[in-house]
Amino acid sequence: MLSRRKFLSATSTGIAGSVVAGRAAADTLAEVPPRELGTNLSGHSDRSKYVQISRIPEAGPGKRNVDPSDAINSKTPLDKLVGTLTPSDLHYERSHAGVPDLDPAKHRLLIHGMTQKQLVLTVGDLKTMPSVSRTVFIECTGNGWENWKKADENLTVQNTHGLVSTNEWTGVPLKFLVDLVGKDRGSTWMLAEGGDAAGVARSIPLTDEIMDEAFVAYGQNGEPLRPAHGFPIRLVMPGFEGNLNIKWLRRLKFGDQPWMTRWETARYTQLLANGNARQFQLRMETNSVITSPSGTMQIEPGYNRVTGLAWSGHGKIEKVEISTDGAKTWKQAQLNAPLLPKAQTRFQIDWMWDGKPTKIVSRSTDEKGNVQPDRKSFIDQTGTNALFHYSAQQTWSIDAGGRVRNVLA
Amino acid sequence: MLSRRKFLSATSTGIAGSVVAGRAAADTLAEVPPRELGTNLSGHSDRSKYVQISRIPEAGPGKRNVDPSDAINSKTPLDKLVGTLTPSDLHYERSHAGVPDLDPAKHRLLIHGMTQKQLVLTVGDLKTMPSVSRTVFIECTGNGWENWKKADENLTVQNTHGLVSTNEWTGVPLKFLVDLVGKDRGSTWMLAEGGDAAGVARSIPLTDEIMDEAFVAYGQNGEPLRPAHGFPIRLVMPGFEGNLNIKWLRRLKFGDQPWMTRWETARYTQLLANGNARQFQLRMETNSVITSPSGTMQIEPGYNRVTGLAWSGHGKIEKVEISTDGAKTWKQAQLNAPLLPKAQTRFQIDWMWDGKPTKIVSRSTDEKGNVQPDRKSFIDQTGTNALFHYSAQQTWSIDAGGRVRNVLA
Repeated sequence: MLSRRKFLSATSTGIAGSVVAGRAAADTLAEVPPRELGTNLSGHSDRSKYVQISRIPEAGPGKRNVDPSDAINSKTPLDKLVGTLTPSDLHYERSHAGVPDLDPAKHRLLIHGMTQKQLVLTVGDLKTMPSVSRTVFIECTGNGWENWKKADENLTVQNTHGLVSTNEWTGVPLKFLVDLVGKDRGSTWMLAEGGDAAGVARSIPLTDEIMDEAFVAYGQNGEPLRPAHGFPIRLVMPGFEGNLNIKWLRRLKFGDQPWMTRWETARYTQLLANGNARQFQLRMETNSVITSPSGTMQIEPGYNRVTGLAWSGHGKIEKVEISTDGAKTWKQAQLNAPLLPKAQTRFQIDWMWDGKPTKIVSRSTDEKGNVQPDRKSFIDQTGTNALFHYSAQQTWSIDAGGRVRNVLA
Repeated sequence: MLSRRKFLSATSTGIAGSVVAGRAAADTLAEVPPRELGTNLSGHSDRSKYVQISRIPEAGPGKRNVDPSDAINSKTPLDKLVGTLTPSDLHYERSHAGVPDLDPAKHRLLIHGMTQKQLVLTVGDLKTMPSVSRTVFIECTGNGWENWKKADENLTVQNTHGLVSTNEWTGVPLKFLVDLVGKDRGSTWMLAEGGDAAGVARSIPLTDEIMDEAFVAYGQNGEPLRPAHGFPIRLVMPGFEGNLNIKWLRRLKFGDQPWMTRWETARYTQLLANGNARQFQLRMETNSVITSPSGTMQIEPGYNRVTGLAWSGHGKIEKVEISTDGAKTWKQAQLNAPLLPKAQTRFQIDWMWDGKPTKIVSRSTDEKGNVQPDRKSFIDQTGTNALFHYSAQQTWSIDAGGRVRNVLA
């Protein structure tokens, strides 16, 4: 799949635009700029002045150039990232009442409801408890919403898919806290409530999977959470809707039925084709997107590397297939190790583009056998009334000039 | 090991200083500060104003408060980190002529020597090649040098062990580049040279392990390298001395013997007890350190969590043992998943401190069976002439007042 022969052939025949051809030769460093004394060492390593990399605050689907006070989310620049992790300051953010910067010394977590005892914990308390670290994706259920109804051909992959990110999160297993308060056997639901002004609150079913995997995080990529991501503590729910990963967590309440908050009766429901609304569609689907080449990029005929990210709320990614002929034929891409469950997985494949207009598409399959649907199948099943859980295959169109554009299929 | 019973017992008997005791009770959020509208969303998530976290630039062992222009390294605050990753801006830095901010459009990598062809690659060329991502530690061979001869009891773990960090690095396998230029069979060494003004250059033996694992990285924790860490490209040599992970990489030359640069004849040699110098001691040893409680911290009697990091240049960490009685008895700590080879592994154990003066120590064993030596065995074997490869067990002394201090054993 990663053919050195193909790569060499591409370069030696001179058809590759961006690769070594024509530059080999001299046993010299004459081409390399001279070496100069650098700047002083520092307390923090800043980015290079040559690297411009930023999220995009938006006010919702199609509302991209807004006053920052109107922004409801800010998207990760997937086109500019490599590997699998998202830098903490570029993890996507979504909030309903701005970003509070809470004082960790004053913050508390109340745990109560159907329990033997009630506890009010400090952040310091949590840090003395057993901890887990886990590298997982968190994805806004609205990710992909730009393409629900029509395709804007000027969109980048940051616009279409920038509401998903992968970090290493560290915190206390939910199970440990549940044992600490002595949850009643009859309690099968948990209310998690945030400390933002909007008071986002979600009812979470206490399945075995969630009891095993959920945790209250205070760490993100090795350091304390950042305010935009829930400082000082947030819930992490591997594989489930971003909004369940309650930020600025202030309360966990145990009960025997969902609380039917406005976040689950109105905001995060899925309007179906028949006009009914589906509630509690909590798990994120198997998904993938080619991040390069992707929307608004420009490519040259010859050798190109096709790479992107795949993820699934069901577990590990099993395979990713790439089509470079508009979904007629498919080839299996290389998946970069390690393949972590419910984390983003980097895929790549080499491709000789003949310079003719075409379309490129990726299709993921997870370890449970879920296959990412093409757009037609997806829309046939869901209709176009909904705003959430868009996970159809993403198609990028490439014209004869090498310009890459967002299209529906 | 992670005993909820012990934790509960500690809290219910009221002997834990920092834990829930006395705060349970009210089914109310009265203690929680009121919720206010937050600030606007942004292009980058900054740290909380409540989080002060920074490296410390130093001029060498014992030289900690110097003019920044004299600093030769800047240490990672291991005491303030959680999980296993190091934030990119806090990855330790070590440089010999400051930090150049190279223009990636002008930078070149020359590959030449005993090869069928010579190549001059751009950064763009490298990004079109097959990539790997790998989470590994990089450690300065000087890490631990503060404790070679005597112990300053005012040192933190940042001072004693802050020259090791773990990032996810992304780049092109050395093997791919070697195949691309057609390395001669007779070439068993590679010279890697940096683009800083000091021109750091090291001879690297092309063992099977290094051919399989080394790569030329352009990505760090998902984003382009930062200048302090080699932007636009660096060599990554999992498990080997930090100085072999050549930053600002400009040249790879293949030959049949080492070049004996000043970096391997003078700077990075190991002065033995008998006055001879050992060259090419390249691999980093199995190592570990308790990061909490650690130097200058203050603890309370009762329940305490003991946690830290272990790592080995030989592969995975197999086990970490903790002594809380000055190395008389040992208990096995929990190792947090995933256990990645040549990456830092988080360990933890719970501990009831009786309030009497004691010493706490950690001891790691890697998958090859290498056991981290106690200081006496280590010094018996190495003497105290050397500056590098200090990997003896780290002892923290705790006095009756709960003050934690750096001691030699």
